[in-house]
Amino acid sequence: MEIMNGKELSRQLEGDLQKQMSLIQSTQARLPLLVVVLVGEDPASLSYVAQKEKACARVGFLSKVHRHAETITQDELTQIIVSLNLDPEVDGILLQLPLPKHINSSALLQLIQPDKDVDGLNPINVAKLYANQKGFVPCTPKGIMTLLHAYHVELSGKKVVVLGRSALVGRPVAQLMLNQNATVTICHSKTQDIAHHTKDADVIVVAIGKALFLDQSFISKNQVIVDVGITRVEGKLVGDVDYEAIKEQCALITPVPGGVGPMTIVSLLENTLEAYQEHMKEITHARL
Amino acid sequence: MEIMNGKELSRQLEGDLQKQMSLIQSTQARLPLLVVVLVGEDPASLSYVAQKEKACARVGFLSKVHRHAETITQDELTQIIVSLNLDPEVDGILLQLPLPKHINSSALLQLIQPDKDVDGLNPINVAKLYANQKGFVPCTPKGIMTLLHAYHVELSGKKVVVLGRSALVGRPVAQLMLNQNATVTICHSKTQDIAHHTKDADVIVVAIGKALFLDQSFISKNQVIVDVGITRVEGKLVGDVDYEAIKEQCALITPVPGGVGPMTIVSLLENTLEAYQEHMKEITHARL
Repeated sequence: MEIMNGKELSRQLEGDLQKQMSLIQSTQARLPLLVVVLVGEDPASLSYVAQKEKACARVGFLSKVHRHAETITQDELTQIIVSLNLDPEVDGILLQLPLPKHINSSALLQLIQPDKDVDGLNPINVAKLYANQKGFVPCTPKGIMTLLHAYHVELSGKKVVVLGRSALVGRPVAQLMLNQNATVTICHSKTQDIAHHTKDADVIVVAIGKALFLDQSFISKNQVIVDVGITRVEGKLVGDVDYEAIKEQCALITPVPGGVGPMTIVSLLENTLEAYQEHMKEITHARL
Repeated sequence: MEIMNGKELSRQLEGDLQKQMSLIQSTQARLPLLVVVLVGEDPASLSYVAQKEKACARVGFLSKVHRHAETITQDELTQIIVSLNLDPEVDGILLQLPLPKHINSSALLQLIQPDKDVDGLNPINVAKLYANQKGFVPCTPKGIMTLLHAYHVELSGKKVVVLGRSALVGRPVAQLMLNQNATVTICHSKTQDIAHHTKDADVIVVAIGKALFLDQSFISKNQVIVDVGITRVEGKLVGDVDYEAIKEQCALITPVPGGVGPMTIVSLLENTLEAYQEHMKEITHARL
């Protein structure tokens, strides 16, 4: 059994970003800027946003958080997105989800300019993913693919089973696997015999948000297991996978914490830098 | 074994559309209009477009075909789409694919107003499908779902295997199945053992464009089989399924021709009528 150490890999990748930033700092007139729009006081959202700000600071990006009360209206949020779209200094716009129930999140995501959509949830980027075209990919799925690639997990022709079908993780990760020529099965709460599918898989991605769900009864030998879940149980963070119970049987497994989580953050940084580079290219082209 | 008779079902559905049209003809100032944009002389495209025009005529829709030479430029096609978007009499815009290689199809599909995108290929509609929200669904996948529903095929919790991963059929049909709570596996040319998956399925959808591919070696008993392929072999139309060889073993199967093909056409009519009704509603609202 080998651990897929997302924490270590993300540090290496941040190191690469820092190197690129040294060059940018000495040659460019402005730095990458990520703007996070945060509504309300959800503790998980607050913690995620704080992590994203810290990560930006570590690699030398600028970041701003637009904080708003739960009572903000759709029109007000629309105005904010429009002004961020128009601001030439803003490279990435991240609308922290979930939003309050009176807000239509889809309409706002649709509004974010695709070239600033570093979370990959604008329809243009979603459609690109499903058409296997280059575009911004949601950060958790992107991080998973980077991690698997770093550990030399070959996906072409392999059987991948994804547990969970959310728009944020399950569906996009399934599409990325399909784009890598894997044979992909998506299981979910209505699947009749999940173990039947997971036992047959070469790679299992678990993204259902049920603490310690995937135990020995679901697995066979020498599989690659990616755990996207993160739940606090008796003060301790655990994943969707019963790590201690199954780790010895796996070929490769991600720990929680220190697996997919840090890969998500570094993927956001990579997307932001990519957005910045495209924006700087456009300026250069406009000047020529 | 029972045949899923798409020809018969599509006639019934066209009958329903005709009834709705009688009411529309006697009460509304204008009729539904579908505009097809056709480039070049591809014989298959010419035949599909002719079928679509005939179907419109049968139910009483108006239709127009914008025919253009292979030499048309991207800018010219862009101008055509923009003017169709602006034309209040146009309900549906269908860009017949494939387009010549010098044309960027994605850019044009992206341009079609989502409310006129009766082929369901605009990114907004693609993203809605993947988010399980209401929007226009591509006609072949929509037709398949209508057919399965009419034959009372329960999909929730069932194992569905889709062969093929095109943006037009394989991927959207997989998403529709997932939205119906099926457990979905997508197989393709890089899948190592397709029979391993198809034998285990409750429902198999074959959309790979290989004549008579799915034979006895791929199936088990009492399955539901949907054949999307259509190829001319020695003057005869055949599907991706070796129908004669396997029909007795199936619970339900679509024939070729007369299965999925007519369902695709009637789905286009349904989408066009839906677009028309939305447009008429908007006019009424604007008047109030």
